[in-house]
Amino acid sequence: MKLLFVATLALLALSYLDQVDSSAYDKIVSHSRIRARTQGPNVCALQQVMGTKKKYFSTLLRLSDLGGLDGTSTGMPGVQCGVEICIECFYIHVVYDLLHPPVAPIDTVYKTLDLVKADITKQYSDISRIKEEIDGSGTYTMFVPSDDAWNQLDGTARKALESNVNNELYKTLHYHMVNKRLLTKDLKNDMTLESIYNNLGLYINHYSNGIVTVNCARIINANQMATNGVVHVIDRVVSAVGNTIKELINNHEELGSLSAAFNVESSLLEKLGEPGHYTLFAPTNEAFDKVDREVIERVLGDKNVVQALLKYHLLSSVQCSEAIMAGSVYETMEGSTIEIGCDGDSLTVNGIKMVLKKDIVTKNGVIHLIDQVLMPDSAKQVTELIGGSQSTFSDMVYELGLSAAMRPETQYTLLAPLNGAFNEEVMSMDQRLLKIILENHILKLKVTLSELYNGQLLETLGGKFLRVFVYRTAVCIENACMVRGSKEGSNGALHLLTSLIKLPTTTVYEMLEADGRFTVFLSLMEMAGLTDLLRQEGGYTVFAPTDDAFDGLTEEDLTLLTSDMNALRTILLYHFSNGVFINGGLEGGVTNLLKTIQGNNLQVMSVRAFSSAFITRPLITHIQTHILKEIVAPLPVTSSWPCRLARRPKQLHAQPGRLIVAH
Amino acid sequence: MKLLFVATLALLALSYLDQVDSSAYDKIVSHSRIRARTQGPNVCALQQVMGTKKKYFSTLLRLSDLGGLDGTSTGMPGVQCGVEICIECFYIHVVYDLLHPPVAPIDTVYKTLDLVKADITKQYSDISRIKEEIDGSGTYTMFVPSDDAWNQLDGTARKALESNVNNELYKTLHYHMVNKRLLTKDLKNDMTLESIYNNLGLYINHYSNGIVTVNCARIINANQMATNGVVHVIDRVVSAVGNTIKELINNHEELGSLSAAFNVESSLLEKLGEPGHYTLFAPTNEAFDKVDREVIERVLGDKNVVQALLKYHLLSSVQCSEAIMAGSVYETMEGSTIEIGCDGDSLTVNGIKMVLKKDIVTKNGVIHLIDQVLMPDSAKQVTELIGGSQSTFSDMVYELGLSAAMRPETQYTLLAPLNGAFNEEVMSMDQRLLKIILENHILKLKVTLSELYNGQLLETLGGKFLRVFVYRTAVCIENACMVRGSKEGSNGALHLLTSLIKLPTTTVYEMLEADGRFTVFLSLMEMAGLTDLLRQEGGYTVFAPTDDAFDGLTEEDLTLLTSDMNALRTILLYHFSNGVFINGGLEGGVTNLLKTIQGNNLQVMSVRAFSSAFITRPLITHIQTHILKEIVAPLPVTSSWPCRLARRPKQLHAQPGRLIVAH
Repeated sequence: MKLLFVATLALLALSYLDQVDSSAYDKIVSHSRIRARTQGPNVCALQQVMGTKKKYFSTLLRLSDLGGLDGTSTGMPGVQCGVEICIECFYIHVVYDLLHPPVAPIDTVYKTLDLVKADITKQYSDISRIKEEIDGSGTYTMFVPSDDAWNQLDGTARKALESNVNNELYKTLHYHMVNKRLLTKDLKNDMTLESIYNNLGLYINHYSNGIVTVNCARIINANQMATNGVVHVIDRVVSAVGNTIKELINNHEELGSLSAAFNVESSLLEKLGEPGHYTLFAPTNEAFDKVDREVIERVLGDKNVVQALLKYHLLSSVQCSEAIMAGSVYETMEGSTIEIGCDGDSLTVNGIKMVLKKDIVTKNGVIHLIDQVLMPDSAKQVTELIGGSQSTFSDMVYELGLSAAMRPETQYTLLAPLNGAFNEEVMSMDQRLLKIILENHILKLKVTLSELYNGQLLETLGGKFLRVFVYRTAVCIENACMVRGSKEGSNGALHLLTSLIKLPTTTVYEMLEADGRFTVFLSLMEMAGLTDLLRQEGGYTVFAPTDDAFDGLTEEDLTLLTSDMNALRTILLYHFSNGVFINGGLEGGVTNLLKTIQGNNLQVMSVRAFSSAFITRPLITHIQTHILKEIVAPLPVTSSWPCRLARRPKQLHAQPGRLIVAH
Repeated sequence: MKLLFVATLALLALSYLDQVDSSAYDKIVSHSRIRARTQGPNVCALQQVMGTKKKYFSTLLRLSDLGGLDGTSTGMPGVQCGVEICIECFYIHVVYDLLHPPVAPIDTVYKTLDLVKADITKQYSDISRIKEEIDGSGTYTMFVPSDDAWNQLDGTARKALESNVNNELYKTLHYHMVNKRLLTKDLKNDMTLESIYNNLGLYINHYSNGIVTVNCARIINANQMATNGVVHVIDRVVSAVGNTIKELINNHEELGSLSAAFNVESSLLEKLGEPGHYTLFAPTNEAFDKVDREVIERVLGDKNVVQALLKYHLLSSVQCSEAIMAGSVYETMEGSTIEIGCDGDSLTVNGIKMVLKKDIVTKNGVIHLIDQVLMPDSAKQVTELIGGSQSTFSDMVYELGLSAAMRPETQYTLLAPLNGAFNEEVMSMDQRLLKIILENHILKLKVTLSELYNGQLLETLGGKFLRVFVYRTAVCIENACMVRGSKEGSNGALHLLTSLIKLPTTTVYEMLEADGRFTVFLSLMEMAGLTDLLRQEGGYTVFAPTDDAFDGLTEEDLTLLTSDMNALRTILLYHFSNGVFINGGLEGGVTNLLKTIQGNNLQVMSVRAFSSAFITRPLITHIQTHILKEIVAPLPVTSSWPCRLARRPKQLHAQPGRLIVAH
């Protein structure tokens, strides 16, 4: 019990002598201690991964990520990454005087080894000449491997140390020591300490979640104050570091293929030979062997692509495996991100268990060996970007012989409708017709999402030009709007569409006439001399009332409506808005204010926007039709306004232009 | 009103098409919008510095830093750094249909200039050839200077632009444009964008508080979606950047002295000529002129010192003035920190108003000109480290002629008692005696805090050796304990003490005998044959009971006590603890467990520790005395234990060793 208090209170440490603010760690721990006094026992500062010595601050614990605190509900047996238990609890007052918990005086570094139960380190200090140092004069920070840490060391290495205590063991222990007192608050991220062993570097990382590592060994019991220094217990025996990442790549027998890739364009490799702080996920030769020969050759043949590929394996910070929180997303030097997680005891990258060897420490960062090559979008061809939700499109393109146009050396863009767009009607279509339609889903150029603009015309493989409509919350190409998931490959881009692109084939006039539901509207347009508007080119949207929309009007009303040509024209032109608003272009959840040719705004409240829309034929490139069940009018403009309309003020006058949509 | 909604809703933007998570900014703003729907009007996402366009997220607003929201209570007139008002409020539903606020369709970049009230930029687009571009085909991100930004430009520069619209103005506007759509979530920290003007770089910073800058100009109205791009309004006109920090240092006419300092050892300067992300606080020639010639020469004469000085002016990140939150602390490349704040409209460094010119943007970072040289401790001599709280010590040292020993080229350490330690008694002391005392406050070597260890002997200028005591929460030198504020200079260290160091002059025995209050204790010691313990050398602390402590004992009790020599010895040895515990060495707020020579632990509860203590003379180097008002005993060891003691079980037996301290 006494030991526990010494351990928890040791954090008070010498720190108050210093000007520097205490670390986040200290703050969290001391806050938890204060809470423990009032809230009772088992107030946690740290939580621990079951069966391991890994600790996390409970404030950072993402409960949603956990299967459950008992580790059972996710169905994984035994130790599991992300499943944690409370370990650093404060129940000081339960046993002792609440106000004055007992504390033993501190002792030398050597005697502190007892306190932290580092029996093997103590025994090694006894048999080498280290005891005399750490039990005597001088000031030392000692990174003390726990007994588990020593036992993890392979047998040969351990024997080598034990058979040469005055040289090997002595040097090894000296490499774990620094000749001044350094608390974790003094251990800054990316700091290099000089060890007592030939001043060889100890590489410190201090992560924002409070984890501190020394050559990627984690401090599992920190700041144990001693009269002649301080003890930090670590979970691994560390050994001296000689190489840079560059040297390691060039010399490691499992990294021959990676080295070859790096040597295609050596500037990146040079950078990895200079001082810095990197993490490299290094695919082994075996990993490269798994990739198609053809793909490897294509990648290695293009300096830009090989750079993108390699940079996708690099982080510009040191991420030791111990510091990686499951599910963390890191920006790679390529620009896009990778997700590092874990599955049982193994690290995963983008969800895949691929890390063979963790934490190879170098002078300028850390290397994790992986058994797969990570392929960023920027190193892929467009066809390799296609996902499962677009597999039907992909299959059809190949079946219909369109894949010949999609060569790695050609630039192109795929507008891929989601699988759902290929319904029965489409699939039962004539193959030649479908081929023509799909040809219009392949653009002759690379066009990324950030380059699309309203009014842009995109030439397709079929020689047609597709119109681009950019709205606040949507980008549409002809009748089809995009969904999330645009990607950019080495030779082009991929965009996902909700539906197939159907190019218009008629004018608005032809369409309305053929439909048969718009006889009253068309006759009124004729009467007002506005029919040309439905035939000519322009950037308009027509909100066309069906015959049903005139249902309530008597013959008398109609006569009244047609008696004043100006009023009629005003009402009709109020159904034409400037600009093309196809389904997705009208925002849901808001009242869209659309300026009409008449001059007033239409207030279009979109109930999942307009569910039925016609696209008119190419000649009339900018007319879009929506169907109305009701006739609408702007605010009264003449005194001779039809009384029939005036009798329905709520529907028409009071809310001018409120539309009721067809479906 | 319409404009407001367009502005607030524009943030919905194209963003949902992309895979990348939305930025913190988007999240905060959209959260505030949701709150506005339920909580009513005036729910704030952003707050604005009064009278300026500076915005901060209200979640980051430190109310304690503010004088008051009206800016009056801190007594500063007008614009004031840190005083903020609510600006980005959401009261959508107050005026319009709660479920369906009205939204106008987006328009071209050119027409969006109206929306963001960028009249001057619009006018300049009209008279140059820019309008055709931004009102037509293509995709643009335009960083639009606000009208205020243009008006801040000096008259000559503005005229030069206006008189050469097809060249200068055209180029300037092109430098504000990128040919793709980039929302703030796409603008990553330390990113360089290629502008349309000769692909010259635009330097982006995206800070963790949501602030985004372009060449240090702040985006004050972001993500205004347009059909052919996006508009971000910025608070400054930006101009093309050609130099690195190195080139700027070497060529700027006001930085000649700085350049000379950098050229003493050129490796640092070379680094500032390479790609990177730095902030340099560059002292002008005038700043160097303010420093003593002698100091400058000393600094420039030592490569290590000049490096420390220069690195103290450098941050390894780009900190534009707009992004600096008042009171932020930054770690310099030297290792220690500086605090950047503000006073009215001016930036301050370490609390001093010294920034002459902010935000000189270079290819590899930003430069702020300052009119003072910042001197880190590591570039100072020890004497320059002495602060106001130690001025009496400093004065006395000079007066008594001790300063001769403290030369810049000599290593030494000052143990400086705080001014309060120099009380009347000390000040009225014989000068020669005081000189001897103060000589023992100057060590012959540089000894930093992290190098001190328990049992260390420090040789003073006076030839004496001071003992160091290291406790968990204190470091003491002889009778004097340190307080926070140890500093390390170029040629030594400074430590602050609560009191004057008084070297011991007597043995414990002499001291107790001379005191006169310990006759019973001394006679019992004599009787038990333990007097030698009080005379010989050793590392002990005596808790000495006064005669009052034996007050309650009758003659009979005493006889009983002395009848069993073993029991007496046990009780007496229970008053001697192993190790020296001077005042500060016993922790407050806990029960100190001190092992006694008798074998059992003393449980010492320190009420502000022991307020009275004697230091014994050098011969008996390790005995420390504390005075008790009560006699204490360990758990009963023999059956012949004095019944008098047995009758007071609560005070002695049940809580063995509980001490009542003298004062």
